[in-house]
Amino acid sequence: MPMRYRKLGQWGLKVSEISLGAWVTYGDAVNDLERIKQITRIAYEGGINFFDNADVYAKGLAEELMSKALLEQFPRHELVLSSKVYWPTSEDANGRGLSRKHVRESLERSLKRMGTDYLDLYFCHRYDPEVPMEEIVTTMSNLVERGLVLYWGTSEWPAARIVEAVQFARANGLHPPAVEQPQYSMLYRERVEQEILPETERFGLGMVVWSPLAMGMLTGRYDKGVPKDSRFERYPQFGNRFLTDENVKKVKALKKVAADLGLTRTQLALAWVLRQKGLSSAITGATKPEQLKESLGAAGVDLPQEALERIEQILGRARG
Amino acid sequence: MPMRYRKLGQWGLKVSEISLGAWVTYGDAVNDLERIKQITRIAYEGGINFFDNADVYAKGLAEELMSKALLEQFPRHELVLSSKVYWPTSEDANGRGLSRKHVRESLERSLKRMGTDYLDLYFCHRYDPEVPMEEIVTTMSNLVERGLVLYWGTSEWPAARIVEAVQFARANGLHPPAVEQPQYSMLYRERVEQEILPETERFGLGMVVWSPLAMGMLTGRYDKGVPKDSRFERYPQFGNRFLTDENVKKVKALKKVAADLGLTRTQLALAWVLRQKGLSSAITGATKPEQLKESLGAAGVDLPQEALERIEQILGRARG
Amino acid sequence: MPMRYRKLGQWGLKVSEISLGAWVTYGDAVNDLERIKQITRIAYEGGINFFDNADVYAKGLAEELMSKALLEQFPRHELVLSSKVYWPTSEDANGRGLSRKHVRESLERSLKRMGTDYLDLYFCHRYDPEVPMEEIVTTMSNLVERGLVLYWGTSEWPAARIVEAVQFARANGLHPPAVEQPQYSMLYRERVEQEILPETERFGLGMVVWSPLAMGMLTGRYDKGVPKDSRFERYPQFGNRFLTDENVKKVKALKKVAADLGLTRTQLALAWVLRQKGLSSAITGATKPEQLKESLGAAGVDLPQEALERIEQILGRARG
Amino acid sequence: MPMRYRKLGQWGLKVSEISLGAWVTYGDAVNDLERIKQITRIAYEGGINFFDNADVYAKGLAEELMSKALLEQFPRHELVLSSKVYWPTSEDANGRGLSRKHVRESLERSLKRMGTDYLDLYFCHRYDPEVPMEEIVTTMSNLVERGLVLYWGTSEWPAARIVEAVQFARANGLHPPAVEQPQYSMLYRERVEQEILPETERFGLGMVVWSPLAMGMLTGRYDKGVPKDSRFERYPQFGNRFLTDENVKKVKALKKVAADLGLTRTQLALAWVLRQKGLSSAITGATKPEQLKESLGAAGVDLPQEALERIEQILGRARG
Repeated sequence: MPMRYRKLGQWGLKVSEISLGAWVTYGDAVNDLERIKQITRIAYEGGINFFDNADVYAKGLAEELMSKALLEQFPRHELVLSSKVYWPTSEDANGRGLSRKHVRESLERSLKRMGTDYLDLYFCHRYDPEVPMEEIVTTMSNLVERGLVLYWGTSEWPAARIVEAVQFARANGLHPPAVEQPQYSMLYRERVEQEILPETERFGLGMVVWSPLAMGMLTGRYDKGVPKDSRFERYPQFGNRFLTDENVKKVKALKKVAADLGLTRTQLALAWVLRQKGLSSAITGATKPEQLKESLGAAGVDLPQEALERIEQILGRARG
Repeated sequence: MPMRYRKLGQWGLKVSEISLGAWVTYGDAVNDLERIKQITRIAYEGGINFFDNADVYAKGLAEELMSKALLEQFPRHELVLSSKVYWPTSEDANGRGLSRKHVRESLERSLKRMGTDYLDLYFCHRYDPEVPMEEIVTTMSNLVERGLVLYWGTSEWPAARIVEAVQFARANGLHPPAVEQPQYSMLYRERVEQEILPETERFGLGMVVWSPLAMGMLTGRYDKGVPKDSRFERYPQFGNRFLTDENVKKVKALKKVAADLGLTRTQLALAWVLRQKGLSSAITGATKPEQLKESLGAAGVDLPQEALERIEQILGRARG
Repeated sequence: MPMRYRKLGQWGLKVSEISLGAWVTYGDAVNDLERIKQITRIAYEGGINFFDNADVYAKGLAEELMSKALLEQFPRHELVLSSKVYWPTSEDANGRGLSRKHVRESLERSLKRMGTDYLDLYFCHRYDPEVPMEEIVTTMSNLVERGLVLYWGTSEWPAARIVEAVQFARANGLHPPAVEQPQYSMLYRERVEQEILPETERFGLGMVVWSPLAMGMLTGRYDKGVPKDSRFERYPQFGNRFLTDENVKKVKALKKVAADLGLTRTQLALAWVLRQKGLSSAITGATKPEQLKESLGAAGVDLPQEALERIEQILGRARG
Repeated sequence: MPMRYRKLGQWGLKVSEISLGAWVTYGDAVNDLERIKQITRIAYEGGINFFDNADVYAKGLAEELMSKALLEQFPRHELVLSSKVYWPTSEDANGRGLSRKHVRESLERSLKRMGTDYLDLYFCHRYDPEVPMEEIVTTMSNLVERGLVLYWGTSEWPAARIVEAVQFARANGLHPPAVEQPQYSMLYRERVEQEILPETERFGLGMVVWSPLAMGMLTGRYDKGVPKDSRFERYPQFGNRFLTDENVKKVKALKKVAADLGLTRTQLALAWVLRQKGLSSAITGATKPEQLKESLGAAGVDLPQEALERIEQILGRARG
């Protein structure tokens, strides 16, 4: 079905339901520019307009490669490009965090690497308790004022800090955060559903989610253990988090639900996170064209109520 | 011990405990770029990240030489560069002070001389009673908005004016001053301890101090009078201020305290100002490599309580 | 030891560490004015100055009896009197919640029943999602402006709503909430420690806690089941919540820790909640003089670090 | 010469240059209502309109007696009545300071004792570091809003706290303090001249000063030691502060300056403090009619420049 676009919360920007992220992929597992061009062309032709990145992904190479692949092929104005700041990019005292200094200096380098003079979205990659809210919000809002960033957002922030940032911005005539990017999937849902989504909806923020496939666990790839060359082999810490007997059982049980709808489990998992109206986009990763094509198959899918109920039973979560 | 970094008051910027200033040194006693490169390299390798300057130091030559020495050797983002504005840089009616005109025009020239498009810290070198607080604060805050300055500060301002500036900024959604730079040392302490530090701590400003060695008096260099080629010979007005019989006696008495800790008096004097938790950095000067190396020996030193008490007795100050 | 008084967060009001609440006691288990006078006299003489109440306790009778007992004996200005609003006081459409209408009308009746023209503390007894934050905060702040209430607070509010209320008040020049009243005890601690206390401390609110003895469970009264005439017999819903095998085991294990300190378990449980510096008072209940006298024995007690560690082990909670 | 009236700084209220205070006099040395009536009648007829008081003077008796003496004789609207709050009025935890609770409760009792439903001036008798500026300023401003107080002020506040209070009030649309009441006299001048007056003038506050005669020292009464029944005999702590050899010498030297102008030393000392244009009134005390009559002789006196210079020489103070 055709890609649908959703507003970023109350804001005017529209992003594709399915989006493509560079994390642990470009500059990392995939370094070949032509291959990235091929994948991003499939994405673009499939209707994806939002491409997610960060200063620390592959030490800057992810920004460079994905952006080059995109801008050599497509008009800048059709793309929603993001990056992020917080994690260390150098070892010196000001080489990390959300101080005005590090944000300014990291953004400058991100723009240079990406070959653009503005980002559509710029995320504070975590909350930084060492920097006062006043400094964070005035700094991010100022980037919007200066045209370097169109909307700023947060990623993995505690709910109370999002509320504080929005209210501080409102009280001072500044740009509030417009979007939060948390982790969210069938296997990692409590925090978003109970704490974050109620706040983003209350204050008009959009939400884009990372790891909607639980690092690949929900694709079924790990039904029979960890295959050679898979993500869990490369990053065992991800596997350790998700590869439990209970999860394997759940993921196997989802196979039939998906089949009954004519979907793969990947598509089911993406369509499932997108059932949340307060969520704007599910960020997927793709090392190979066929992976992305499968993900694109979730675009435009509305899961019927009966399927949602079967899934709840499988996930075994009594709702309060 | 390794250099430690401190936050600038409540703000996100981190500066090295020991920092290097250009005052009465570069462009003045030291004009050779290679020598300045050598000294700044020792500083950088010793962990110093904050380099203090002002438009009037050596009529601009200090900015030019120190900045050139730094930027030819080190990445801009690892450096915290400052300058200041207030004292006359030309003889015309608007050639001094804190008017919007002079601040803008002086900053423009400082940036050009320093070969950078922004300063990390920019100080109002004194308070200017001829300019309304509204003009000062809107002007300085605007420099932050425009990305020309990351944090603005004050130097040698009366406590009540710092309070007024902070409150005026807060009331009007502007950037408040983030740091004050007063003179502070064992031989010049009352004003900072009784008037300034209580206010900077109350309102979250950082403090960086100049002349922590009392123009060199605390190094022991003047134990037996004024040597040839010393700072007090070159600047007798400094000598007159500090070179009293009482001070000579105090400085001599500090020798044993320092020795008992395995420190020189220079190191003792620097570690002593840094005992104040509300203080972010002690700005030192160095005409020769060995001077700077000695100062770097104060990094990471915590003076024991017993030593602090001996020092109080020598300084002869009953604490309330 | 003598009673200590703590500031209500950053605010100027001081409340006794141990306080007396009317909940499920006066107008309920205890209806005799002379008995209540006797108990409140013991409280007053023991240094208690804060007496907690609510409009719904015993349908108003709690306010009437406790306040009469207090004001017939002690000067009004030495007492910190509270009440609360939210739960239904009548069956009509506006007989509950935090609308401006219900708050005004319920306060009017509370003041009349209590025979005073102002309350020291007035709590929103729960958060009311049907009323916009603007209406809640302007209404409560207006009561302060009119002198009907000295400080307003919240009770059992979600952390994000407390943050929102504080920031809304600050942005609009209104009185922010000054205190939160959550449930907190050895057997019910996660929510306060992980969600609420970090926010009340961040924004300067005080905290007074209800049920520090876990409805009596922590006194040891239920070591061998539910005695006749006990609170768990009268209110089985409380018993169901706390009377588990695991809790019985924990409470028994605390006996020795208490004995080693020369305390009863009641006193240990009260001193334990008061170890939190961000907490202002523990609200106790008393149907009999000897109960209150026992609670008063917790005043001024600082638990040693070693005891706190033994308690953590018994409560079986790995701290992050 | 006739009494002159000065505006309270920038504000509209006018107070007599010479005013009458109750401190250490009424309810204390003088308890007879008829005597107080006689003295206040002399004051009134001499043009005094401002009568200063505080809740703690003679434990409330000063308010009661002076106000009774005034209101039985003169129309309320012709009088400027003040009181103050801060020092303990009861022993309980909230019986002192500037919390909203204590201010409200103390004012209520002051109004009752004074038999009026509003005060013209209400002073925070000291700064209270335990109460946030937000609570102090909102509380005092609210008293103005509710018509209980016409102007609020500070007494013996540090300069930086006055600045903070004014700016906080302005930023939040609240009533700023309108007057400061410090101690000021020929023998106690540095703090006012160097720290306080520059701020009250900058921000439009009035200033009324207490002890312009240095507790009586400047009257010449102690030229030859401490007489029987004198203030320094009753309050040796005051004597200890002022009765030094140096001061005795100064006070004796002032005798001739006064005589050359046809004034007593009392009158010279009052006229001298009133040379400051930023000062609105000098508060005098009087146990006897003749004392007050002498003070009234300072009304309307402008000291010639030559006398001011002779006085400076005697006081021996090099001006910076």
